[in-house]
Amino acid sequence: MDALGRHLLLELKECNPAVLDDLAFLEETMLTAAQKAGATVLEQYFHQFSPQGVSGAVIIAESHLSLHTWPEFGYAAVDIFTCGDSVDTEAAADLLIERLQSKDPVIMEVKRGVLIRTPSRV
Amino acid sequence: MDALGRHLLLELKECNPAVLDDLAFLEETMLTAAQKAGATVLEQYFHQFSPQGVSGAVIIAESHLSLHTWPEFGYAAVDIFTCGDSVDTEAAADLLIERLQSKDPVIMEVKRGVLIRTPSRV
Repeated sequence: MDALGRHLLLELKECNPAVLDDLAFLEETMLTAAQKAGATVLEQYFHQFSPQGVSGAVIIAESHLSLHTWPEFGYAAVDIFTCGDSVDTEAAADLLIERLQSKDPVIMEVKRGVLIRTPSRV
Repeated sequence: MDALGRHLLLELKECNPAVLDDLAFLEETMLTAAQKAGATVLEQYFHQFSPQGVSGAVIIAESHLSLHTWPEFGYAAVDIFTCGDSVDTEAAADLLIERLQSKDPVIMEVKRGVLIRTPSRV
């Protein structure tokens, strides 16, 4: 089914809590994930929360990657939203699962912008 | 069911195409949506594509809002990801649907970070 965008929602449970609170590591990891996917990075922003947790987003020419971490639960929510056929979305997902050391990763894929029109009802 | 995050995926079809290509309008609309929701804006970034289309993200203390538009299809993909109980996520969604003039909006809600542990198998 054709779609304009491909959106992976990563539920990364049982991660390494120390990693989830390390802004510099997470920023470098997200940028590396974008590069591994073959995406073109336009901008990134990351924020360290107190007492813990990091939020961040990488805007790419092909859409975006985002990250929110809860070190106290060993949990990270990552989204990888891409359009076009040139991006290797799985490569980005694999790298993030590996680097965040998630022992219980779940990936959900949502097709965005499926523009089939339903026939008019008679 | 308790969750750390609440994620609304908005499929906004049949929008006003002119609005979907107006970066200044979209940036102001997304910031207003964040404010209407009672969120605290940390950073925003918007990008105009050539020949058309806009991508943008607003990082809030309570997670993020993102937007990608395809004026040629009258379609916008909007995500509103929040945590905590203080944010009125629906208010942001309602404003975006109204301002983008979507005649066929669909909202999907995903709970992020549902951390129930399944019992060990005997």
